[in-house]
This record gives sequence, structure tokens and C-alpha cells, in this order.
Amino acid sequence: MRGLFIGRFQPFHLGHLSIIRSSLDQVDELIIGIGSAELSHTLRDPFTAGERMEMVLLAAEEMGFRERIVVIPVRDINRYSVWAVHVASLCPEFEVVFSNNPLTRILFGEAGYRVEATPFVDRSKLSGHMIRDAIIGGKTWEDRVPEVVAAYIKRIGGPERLCSLADGDHL
Amino acid sequence: MRGLFIGRFQPFHLGHLSIIRSSLDQVDELIIGIGSAELSHTLRDPFTAGERMEMVLLAAEEMGFRERIVVIPVRDINRYSVWAVHVASLCPEFEVVFSNNPLTRILFGEAGYRVEATPFVDRSKLSGHMIRDAIIGGKTWEDRVPEVVAAYIKRIGGPERLCSLADGDHL
Amino acid sequence: MRGLFIGRFQPFHLGHLSIIRSSLDQVDELIIGIGSAELSHTLRDPFTAGERMEMVLLAAEEMGFRERIVVIPVRDINRYSVWAVHVASLCPEFEVVFSNNPLTRILFGEAGYRVEATPFVDRSKLSGHMIRDAIIGGKTWEDRVPEVVAAYIKRIGGPERLCSLADGDHL
Amino acid sequence: MRGLFIGRFQPFHLGHLSIIRSSLDQVDELIIGIGSAELSHTLRDPFTAGERMEMVLLAAEEMGFRERIVVIPVRDINRYSVWAVHVASLCPEFEVVFSNNPLTRILFGEAGYRVEATPFVDRSKLSGHMIRDAIIGGKTWEDRVPEVVAAYIKRIGGPERLCSLADGDHL
Amino acid sequence: MRGLFIGRFQPFHLGHLSIIRSSLDQVDELIIGIGSAELSHTLRDPFTAGERMEMVLLAAEEMGFRERIVVIPVRDINRYSVWAVHVASLCPEFEVVFSNNPLTRILFGEAGYRVEATPFVDRSKLSGHMIRDAIIGGKTWEDRVPEVVAAYIKRIGGPERLCSLADGDHL
Amino acid sequence: MRGLFIGRFQPFHLGHLSIIRSSLDQVDELIIGIGSAELSHTLRDPFTAGERMEMVLLAAEEMGFRERIVVIPVRDINRYSVWAVHVASLCPEFEVVFSNNPLTRILFGEAGYRVEATPFVDRSKLSGHMIRDAIIGGKTWEDRVPEVVAAYIKRIGGPERLCSLADGDHL
Repeated sequence: MRGLFIGRFQPFHLGHLSIIRSSLDQVDELIIGIGSAELSHTLRDPFTAGERMEMVLLAAEEMGFRERIVVIPVRDINRYSVWAVHVASLCPEFEVVFSNNPLTRILFGEAGYRVEATPFVDRSKLSGHMIRDAIIGGKTWEDRVPEVVAAYIKRIGGPERLCSLADGDHL
Repeated sequence: MRGLFIGRFQPFHLGHLSIIRSSLDQVDELIIGIGSAELSHTLRDPFTAGERMEMVLLAAEEMGFRERIVVIPVRDINRYSVWAVHVASLCPEFEVVFSNNPLTRILFGEAGYRVEATPFVDRSKLSGHMIRDAIIGGKTWEDRVPEVVAAYIKRIGGPERLCSLADGDHL
Repeated sequence: MRGLFIGRFQPFHLGHLSIIRSSLDQVDELIIGIGSAELSHTLRDPFTAGERMEMVLLAAEEMGFRERIVVIPVRDINRYSVWAVHVASLCPEFEVVFSNNPLTRILFGEAGYRVEATPFVDRSKLSGHMIRDAIIGGKTWEDRVPEVVAAYIKRIGGPERLCSLADGDHL
Repeated sequence: MRGLFIGRFQPFHLGHLSIIRSSLDQVDELIIGIGSAELSHTLRDPFTAGERMEMVLLAAEEMGFRERIVVIPVRDINRYSVWAVHVASLCPEFEVVFSNNPLTRILFGEAGYRVEATPFVDRSKLSGHMIRDAIIGGKTWEDRVPEVVAAYIKRIGGPERLCSLADGDHL
Repeated sequence: MRGLFIGRFQPFHLGHLSIIRSSLDQVDELIIGIGSAELSHTLRDPFTAGERMEMVLLAAEEMGFRERIVVIPVRDINRYSVWAVHVASLCPEFEVVFSNNPLTRILFGEAGYRVEATPFVDRSKLSGHMIRDAIIGGKTWEDRVPEVVAAYIKRIGGPERLCSLADGDHL
Repeated sequence: MRGLFIGRFQPFHLGHLSIIRSSLDQVDELIIGIGSAELSHTLRDPFTAGERMEMVLLAAEEMGFRERIVVIPVRDINRYSVWAVHVASLCPEFEVVFSNNPLTRILFGEAGYRVEATPFVDRSKLSGHMIRDAIIGGKTWEDRVPEVVAAYIKRIGGPERLCSLADGDHL
């Protein structure tokens, strides 16, 4: 059986990792959808889909579940009435969707999919937003993402990009 | 003579009804444009164009003016310089636009249409925003929409959808 | 019960009329979708959605079934995997789709709708293509469309537009 | 008074030049719209909008009318009912459109512009299509475009690009 | 080192397989881009991106190289001047592109990538076009695709879909 | 050598003028990109691309540098990973980008362009935002834009448009 989990992964962090691991306890394979795939270079979405896919693959490799996942970039279409079908048409078949997000739960539920809750992640302690803020503020953030992901983010100049984006108003 | 009135109808309420009735005093037929037609499943735009069209048709049927209206979904194109022509190309011919909205008045005025004001609706007492808030807050809202519309909204699980959307942050 | 029938109506002709009449024998209301709604001013699609809607309304008025139809412009999205859901989100609820078109039958069938065949129309004798060719070639075409539609097409300068389009190569 | 002339300029050739010169006899300034601006790298549209703008500017510079033209890339929107307004919203004000193209004449005419014919260019002797074919076939083409344009096309490797594109079927 | 190979895979066949195998001799990992990802349900592009991804994964699993590939749907953007950057932004880093397609070679070459030819596949004997024609014509096609792919195509009713699509003209 | 400077020019003001003049000290020709070209008729983006181009041309004419600039409307594509290439494909060749905007600097820098800072403009004293607010508030604004631009804005009814837009909530 296959499942689907969608996140924005800006960046990929330990909360995502725990959700993926718990999902993999319930399905043979997990499709990991990279949401808002075409956004990048903003304070809220600094990394490209390709960079985020690299993060997921690095973590999966290290944790030993790479052969059990399929990673798929999913662009926003800003049309929620067709969104679940849009996602489904890009993915190999799946039966269950793992999500705590109300909108995701509604849309896939209305489209006839089984929807399962994901384990609790305390977003006041661990979220993409917090990590991006920590990077910009020059605070410690590396302990909230897998080690290989922290190294990758540094290698591609992620902190520099975020700090530049934070520094001034845009066009 | 035909007129045009555009609203988002999230949901269709008694203010819309009074505008339509007063417009029908001045024209033979009224085109009712369902604005932001492709939006749905958000707190601001919970209902699909199809659901909103159903609301308009139900009210029109009950009030006895169904054969005098034409209901047309109009998607946003986010390009105001061509918007009036976009709308006009989707509609049968019309001569007059009923609107109190400044942007709508400017755009159709610049495109050469006659623009008429609509009767005053006290938006502090009656607006889609207020009704959506009342639904989410568990307060009375049914008396601000036509009876058939209230029944329809309940039948399709509108209150449940709105409350789910209100409950948490999204992707 | 409501049904759906989709056509391009370039222009609306007697074949469309017979399909609509036969469909109305089986459902209470019929949604008439105007396909390729945003195309116009080409040899294959000369009329705007608004002009085509006017044709449908004029014929419906004359034939006495206007209060039993809902006419909806449906733009192409060039993405067949989500097309049926796209159409459905723009329409009030319907249960059955009337179509002889293989693609339409497949897409609505896969989306779970009941699909019914429409009565035979001999496309070698009656089709939009033939009528457009007759207009351009200066032959008789008026007997293949409802009388009110022929009059409307002439009133808006349809034959002149078609002949101009046929006369030369484009940008 | 300002005029508008739209072409695809794949590539800019002596026919375009003669139309521009004759148009400049009738107006103070001419807007030169580069049509299908976002197309490039195909057999029919090999050059980018930027490359085509460079051709126009080089010719204008050489011929001494650069200060009397404004060159504007115009992307296709595949929606003819709003096309004239689309173009107009991107351009400084103009009063007259120079074109022999039926569609362009219809659309700007319906939008209320004065439309003027352009001097005859024998397309069987001079057209973008012929020049592209000559380049691919290894025949002489340089005498059909302004000298500076021929030099520019060679400098950017235009013939090589066209020949590569002609050599094989695509994705 | 990572490479990129893009195909439409309508359907995935033995020619694709041989190209992938030969590419995997030269790189550690291969990104397999599913081109024209959003097309489906046409005679030329019958299968959805998700179905094509399933074919690739099934073949990769059977052939034992699944852990060395990353499969990514790539939608058409119809704008070749930005296409290579579009693809790159969706993919993890790669250094080399395997392609015999002239356009692909030009675009990635201009964008600074190393481009390598792929081994000869006799398209007069093996191509997606031929296989689709064989399916429609009721001839043998199963020996031109990996066995698991043939089985999958049958399981999802691929031949029936293709034959329906071939049977008649469309909207 | 050619340079590029991109602004929204809502409206064109003396800060833009000083940047352009200083840029023209460093390059032979300057491409002036009109950003967010397809936006208009909002409080933040009241003027169409065409109107803004007219402002730039009027100022350039008066200041005597019209023959050294090329003005190009650049629409938003909301996809920053391809934005620099998008812009470049619409422009004649350029080598250097003048910008203090962090995002612009990052994107063109990553795409391999030389990026130069522009002279300091005190945005607390001179910005499009301030000028639009002054127009709406009925305060003096004419001294912050070139004289010909102030006259043009008045001629096209710019202050009236802005005040109408400010007067009420929109659709």
C-alpha cells in the first residue's frame, strides 16, 4: 500500500522526518509531495523544489528509507476544487493521505481518499518558520534538521540567501 | 435591455437579493456574474462557483425571477486593464452595470458602459464576511440569507467545511 | 435530476437543438456547457462565449425551454486529467452527462458520472464545420440553425467576420 | 500622432523595413510590437524577443529612425476577444494600426482603432518563412534582411540554431 | 555525479530502458524527467504523469536500479527560452544531460550543461508512436515494453482508453 | 555596453530619474524594465504599463537621453527561479544590472550578471508609495516627479483614478 504526505519543506526538518517515519510504519511506500514547488527565493519559501528534493533524498539516504519513498514536486494551482485530482494525476497510485492540515484533509476526503492524522509535532518548537527565523537571526538552527540537511543548506549558501532576502524591501 | 451585476456570493445573502430586485426594476434581464469563480475552500471563499450558482438559482426560483436572469461564473484574471472586456466576452450583450464597487465602476466606465449605483446595503450589518464569521462562531446566520439558501448551505455541509477551514493553519 | 451537455456551438445548430430536446426528455434541468469558452475570432471558433450564449438563449426562449436550462461557459484548461472536476466545480450539481464524444465519455466516466449517448446526428450533413464553410463559401446555411440564431448571426456581422478571417494568413 | 505595427520578425527583413518606413511617413512615432514574444527556439519562431528587438534596433539605428520608434514585446495570450486591449495596455497611446492581417484588422477595428493597410510586400518573394527555409537549406538569405541584421544573426549563431532545430524530431 | 534524461514515456518502452541503462554506466544517479507531465487522455499522450511514473518505477524495480534514479514530472511551459532553467529548478543538482533531441541539446547546451548523445534506438522499429498505433490496431505490442509495464498498462485499461480515444472526433 | 534597471514606476519619480542618470554615466545604453507590467488599477499599482512607459519616454525626451534607453514591459511570472532568464529573454543583450533590491541582486547574481548598486535615494522622502499617498491625501506631490510626468498624470486623470480606488472596498 502507498501513502502520500505533502509538505513545503522550507527547509526539511526533524518534524517532517518523524511524520515520514511514522507513515512508513503504516504503508509500504510513501509519496513525498513537495508543495508550492515553483516558489523559491522568498523569506517564506527560500529554497527551490530541486534543493528541497535534495534535502529529502539526503535524509532518506542517511536514514535508510530511500528505496521506500517517491519524491514529487507539486506546484500550486490556486484552485482548490481540482487540487486533489491535480496531485493524484502526478503521482503513482496511493490509497491513504497523511495530514493534519485541515484543507488537505477536506480536499482529499472529498475526493474519496482515506485521510490519516500524523503524529503531533509541537509547532511552537519546531517549524519551518522558526528555523528560517533562527537562520536570519543568527541563532542555532542546525539541531532542528537532519545533520546532512544542515550541511547541505550551508553548502548551497542557504543562510546567506535568507539573510540577503531579509535585508531590505523588494521590487 | 440587459444589465450586469457581479458579486462573489460567499454566500448569497439578502443584500444581494435586494440589489438584484432593484436592478430588475430597471432592466428586462440581469446577468449575474459569479466573481472569483475558481476560488473555493478558503475562509474568504468557501463555496465553489457551482455551489454559488445553485444558491442564486434557488433564490431566483423561489422569488420568481429565474427566467429573467442569466448566471455566469467569471474567473479572476488578475489583470484589471483587460477585465471589463474579459467579462463582456463571456456574457450576452448588456448595456448597464450595477455596482457600488469603485474598481468595477472605474473599469466598466473606462470600457464605455453605463454604470449605475445599487441601493444601499449596510455592510456593517449584512455582508458575506459577517455571515462566514457567524457560521464559524456558531452564531445565528440563517436569517441573513434566503431560506432556501440556508437550507442548501446546510445540506452540502457548508458550516462543517467552514469550521474545518477555520481550525488550523494551512499547508 | 440534472444533466450536462457540452458543445462548442460554433454556431448553435439544429443538431444541438435535437440533442438538447432529447436530453430534456430525461432530466428536469439541463446544464449546457459552452466549451472552449475563451476562444473566438478564428475560423474554427469564430464566436465569443457571450455570442454563443446569446444563441442558446434565443433558441431556448423560442422553443420554450429556457427555464429548464442553465448555460455555463467552460474554458479549456488543456489538462484532461482534471477536466471533469474542473467542469463540475463550475456547475450546479448534475448526475448524468449526455455525450457521444469519446473523450468526454471517458473523462466523466472515470470521474464517476453516468454517461448517456445522444441521438444520432449525421455530421456529414450537419455540423459546425459545415455551416462555417457554407457561410464562407457564400452558400445557404440558414436552414441548418434555428431561425432566431440565423437572424442573430447576421445582426452581429458573423458572416463578415468569418469571411475576413478566411481572407489571408494571420500574424 | 502615434501608430502601431505588429510583426513576429522571425527574422526582421526588408519587407518589415518598407512597412515601417511607409508608416513613419504617416505618424510621428511608431510602436513596433514584437508578436509571439515568448516563443523562441522553434523552426517557426527561432529567435527570442530580445534577439528580435536587437534586430529592430540595429536596423532603426542604421536607417536613422531609432528616436521615432518604441519597440515592445507582446506575448500571445491566446484569447482574441481581449487581445487588442491587452496590446493597448502595454503601449503608450496610439491612434492608428498599420496592418494587412485580417485578424489584426478585425480585432483593432472592433476595439475602435483606425486601421490602415500597409504597402504591398510580395510574400512569395519575401517572408520570414522563406528566409528561415533559405538559412536551413544553405541558400542565400542575407540580401533579404538589412545588412546589420544579417551580421547580427550570424554573430549569435542563428544559422547554426536553425539547422540544429531542423535536424530531427523533438521531444 | 548525476545525469538527466527526459522523455515522454507514452508508454515507457525498451528504447527508454536501454538509454537509461547506458546512462547509468556513466553517472551515479540518473534523474528521469517525465516530459509533458500534465498531458494525458489524448492519442499522442494517453497516460497521466502518475501512470508513467508507475511504469518507470516498475521497470526500475525489476531491473534493480530503482535506488539510483529520481523520477520527476516536468510540465510543459511552452517557453523554450526559460525551459532549461525551469527543469533545473525542479531537480536535484545534475551535471550532464543525455539526449539525442536537438532542441533539448540546444537548450541545455546554451544553459551551460554538458550534453551527451544517447545510444542509437531505431525509431522506425521502436517508438511510443508505433506502440500506441499497435495497441489501437490490435497488433502485438507487449514485446516492445518491459514485461511489468505491459502488465501494468493492461491492468489500468490502457488499451481500452486508447481505442476509445481513437474512435471518433473530439469536442 | 548595456545595462538594465528595473522599477515599477508607480509613478515614475525623481528618484528613478537620478538612478537612470547615474547608470547612464556607466553604460552606453540602458534598458529600463517596467516591472509588474500587467498590474494596474490598484492602490499599489494604479497605472498600466503603457501609461508608465509614456512617463519614462516623456522624462527621457525632456532630459535628452531618449536615444540611449530601451523601455521594456516585464510581467511578473511569480517564479523567481526562472525570473532572471525570463527578463533576459525579453531584452537585447546587457552586461550589468543596476539595483539595490536584494532579490533582484540575488537572482541576477546567481544568473551570472554583474550587479551594481544604485545611488542612495532616501525612500522616507521619495518613493512611489509616498507619492500615491500624497495624491490620495490631496497633498503636494508634483515636485517629486519630473514636470512632464506630473502634467501627464493629470491629463490622464491619474489623481481621480487613485482617489476612486481609495474610496471603498473592492469586489
